[in-house]
Amino acid sequence: MSELKIGLFGLGVVGSGFVKVISRAINANAGIKKICVKDLGKERDIELPEGLLTDNPADILDDPEINLIVEVINDADAAFVIVSEALKRGIPVVSGSKAMVANHLPELIELQRKYDTALLYDASSCGSIPVIRNLEEYYDNDLLLEVKGILNGSSNYILSRVFDHNQSYEDALKTAIELGFAESDPSFDIEGFDSLFKLIIITVHALGAYVKPSEIFTYGISHISDFDINYAREKSVKIKLVAQVVKISDSEFTMFVMPEFVSRNKYIYSVDDEYNGVVIRGECYDRQFMFGKGAGSLPTASSILSDVMARLHGYRYEYKKMGYKGRPSYSTEPVLKVYVRYRNTPVTELLPFITIQQRFLSDDVNYVIGEIKLSDLIKGREILAAPDVFIVNIPTFFVHLDN
Amino acid sequence: MSELKIGLFGLGVVGSGFVKVISRAINANAGIKKICVKDLGKERDIELPEGLLTDNPADILDDPEINLIVEVINDADAAFVIVSEALKRGIPVVSGSKAMVANHLPELIELQRKYDTALLYDASSCGSIPVIRNLEEYYDNDLLLEVKGILNGSSNYILSRVFDHNQSYEDALKTAIELGFAESDPSFDIEGFDSLFKLIIITVHALGAYVKPSEIFTYGISHISDFDINYAREKSVKIKLVAQVVKISDSEFTMFVMPEFVSRNKYIYSVDDEYNGVVIRGECYDRQFMFGKGAGSLPTASSILSDVMARLHGYRYEYKKMGYKGRPSYSTEPVLKVYVRYRNTPVTELLPFITIQQRFLSDDVNYVIGEIKLSDLIKGREILAAPDVFIVNIPTFFVHLDN
Repeated sequence: MSELKIGLFGLGVVGSGFVKVISRAINANAGIKKICVKDLGKERDIELPEGLLTDNPADILDDPEINLIVEVINDADAAFVIVSEALKRGIPVVSGSKAMVANHLPELIELQRKYDTALLYDASSCGSIPVIRNLEEYYDNDLLLEVKGILNGSSNYILSRVFDHNQSYEDALKTAIELGFAESDPSFDIEGFDSLFKLIIITVHALGAYVKPSEIFTYGISHISDFDINYAREKSVKIKLVAQVVKISDSEFTMFVMPEFVSRNKYIYSVDDEYNGVVIRGECYDRQFMFGKGAGSLPTASSILSDVMARLHGYRYEYKKMGYKGRPSYSTEPVLKVYVRYRNTPVTELLPFITIQQRFLSDDVNYVIGEIKLSDLIKGREILAAPDVFIVNIPTFFVHLDN
Repeated sequence: MSELKIGLFGLGVVGSGFVKVISRAINANAGIKKICVKDLGKERDIELPEGLLTDNPADILDDPEINLIVEVINDADAAFVIVSEALKRGIPVVSGSKAMVANHLPELIELQRKYDTALLYDASSCGSIPVIRNLEEYYDNDLLLEVKGILNGSSNYILSRVFDHNQSYEDALKTAIELGFAESDPSFDIEGFDSLFKLIIITVHALGAYVKPSEIFTYGISHISDFDINYAREKSVKIKLVAQVVKISDSEFTMFVMPEFVSRNKYIYSVDDEYNGVVIRGECYDRQFMFGKGAGSLPTASSILSDVMARLHGYRYEYKKMGYKGRPSYSTEPVLKVYVRYRNTPVTELLPFITIQQRFLSDDVNYVIGEIKLSDLIKGREILAAPDVFIVNIPTFFVHLDN
């Protein structure tokens, strides 16, 4: 492709960032031909040439001159309609919609194959950190063992305020919303779904396996209490919301999103505020740590720009690992060591702990530390969703394998 | 390329690591057909099939079945002969020889163009950290402003022992040699040349500009004294050997390797021991930090493997940035703020400081803190090489631009 004529869907935080970024990229050989927005009448603090905006998707999809679509809208269902329609017409797409990609990846891969076109989405995972591209291209061998990290800036910002600035969780959440680090309905971030969707995408490019969101244990930070915070402080650890995918043997891997006690000697301990950090671990090369701004208008837009420029050279994901020999399969059999704090919910009766190593009982709060199968955590989701319960992973990790 | 038949030059630390790594990479579709070594009689603690070894380069270069050469020998001149001969015959090469690449890059680029073949060398810079590939492919736009990092594991190990473990410089150097982190002649590492060669390669892929080693200010850590160490401790900073390339305007960049006072709030402050860490800074995405094992047998070999597998898909560096509009040119005009410690050498008379802000004089040691042009540091190399002198960069950086 010698010149990119871009049709842009979405002019929100990321979309308007992309308009700015592309204007600085003099060597990109790319320009925006049309921008499709939901509300033409909305006031915008960005200057645009006359006639660039439309509210009719067909103005982009039907334009034979447009040879790349950038999709950065918030509505995952609408995004899927647009992206699949574009792929069916053979128009390559760069997308930043993690929920859309994570929920529809098998179909999107099939559409790319069938219509011989490309969908790139590095911006969907960890903003400006090039994690997808590196997993796909650089860590494309059999040495990869684990990808683990802090993938959600909003929840991390809140936990940083709590642990580094002694704010209460409620105050920290309020600050995050005020500063725009969290949405006014922050549940997508703080309940772990944003991290989950990124983890699903990462796992496809890390191990060549797609696992549906509903099959993965996902637990957020909204139930955290002062008791948990003080407990962590006493042990000189921080609680962070961690997403991880780990090979547990040559033939199996597991994955989950949950709060974790992170000790000072871990790379992710120092990932604070709205930043993201990813540790890639492999045989031979040990641990690689990548750190950067995981969200925000310009960082995400600069990641979109990297994908756009990759299209100048015809780049596409090959999903090579999906065809690899000895591809590992998903398992929820591993045993985790966890801290479960509760008040009235009788968690030790309701959850099938294998062993309980510590038990703290008091008038107003209790906790246990014990070992339990990941599959039993998935089955026990509703119990763990009770408002008086909070669970934290203690990463001695995969007890039956380590011992 | 459907199957890689590899001719390997060198079976030292990295070469034997590569033999191990490739045997674990079941999806690489690659095998070693021949290994060329200098000394066939040398005892090796690695098991190899009969007939794999040769000491005749022609056994590899003349073999029409061999479609990839991996070159990991220590002798930079011999490496250049082998690599250029291979490229002339149209055989792609993966190399780990930073001195060879840094010294000959313009010729090597020309050879790749003329004979339409590829040379990959990600392993030459920062071992297992994929810095070259990311600069070439992901940060291939106009946003990049700076690449700065700790690129040499040996000198960093020594400085870590000094600053984190209170060892003397001499003891730390001895430990480093004993543990194999530094060569028995460690000057390549501790005088900054290893960092310099990596920085030169990085700059080609960061900004599309090649600068000769002799034109770049390079100053190592061998003159560091207890006085300097204590001075840094009192200021709560560490001294680290830092390599950096920085755009100072839209049209100019500068680069150098020298010790720097690094404060606790910098990412590279926590890069300790034999690790490497690289900060990539750009407009819009701010700072990306990549951290990992920068050297050693298996980490470097795993980086070689990434390049080898990239050849399965025909990957080559395009050196796109060398053709970019508005490519910046190299300048040594920036003014640096430096600490210069000395005893008898009259550095303030011999070096044309623009201003001197602090002056400490005593019976047995003196220092000044002042501003000086980078070009005057280059001219003053011999003065700074006096055994009683040590210079450290104070990164308020580019005084005339910041103020």
